[in-house]
Amino acid sequence: MTQLPIEHTVTFQLSHPAGSAAESDFLAAAAELASIPNVHNFQIRRQTSPKNPHRFGISMWFETAEHFAAYCDHPAHVEFVQERWLKEVTDFQESDFEPLA
Amino acid sequence: MTQLPIEHTVTFQLSHPAGSAAESDFLAAAAELASIPNVHNFQIRRQTSPKNPHRFGISMWFETAEHFAAYCDHPAHVEFVQERWLKEVTDFQESDFEPLA
Repeated sequence: MTQLPIEHTVTFQLSHPAGSAAESDFLAAAAELASIPNVHNFQIRRQTSPKNPHRFGISMWFETAEHFAAYCDHPAHVEFVQERWLKEVTDFQESDFEPLA
Repeated sequence: MTQLPIEHTVTFQLSHPAGSAAESDFLAAAAELASIPNVHNFQIRRQTSPKNPHRFGISMWFETAEHFAAYCDHPAHVEFVQERWLKEVTDFQESDFEPLA
């Protein structure tokens, strides 16, 4: 499995009922973040560990720290955070990963 | 990037000082979990998000839920948890992922 050096992840919980149209609409809006430049292998998945209260996870990979920073500052990301994330996400945990060495 | 359906992850914090020999020894012992059958793309990485208090992350992939369960029950995993994890890890958060659909 070829792999880029930086993975950005977040697990989260929505205010919407499981399986609701509002949940689906949020996930569809989040999926559009994949089109921001230099985002690789963007995934939205179900979080299934019973030791974690969050129901979903997003993961994406970057080649460089500059690409990751540009994603964070991209207008489409900033707008998504302001208009959707802050209003519909009740709890979240970010984790970012880089090689040990 | 080819990908298996199940990812098991954990971020964690050790009781050992950063860069210490005890830290390295723990990480080397954890790396041996990669040899448990049906564990794929095992990685230990640095956790770098300032929004997360944990310094390390482990990730691995499984083809089936049965393989994941067999990993959890494998004597090498059980011994690692008892002899190292419970004694040296001060905080952790598991997250497991499966496809949405």
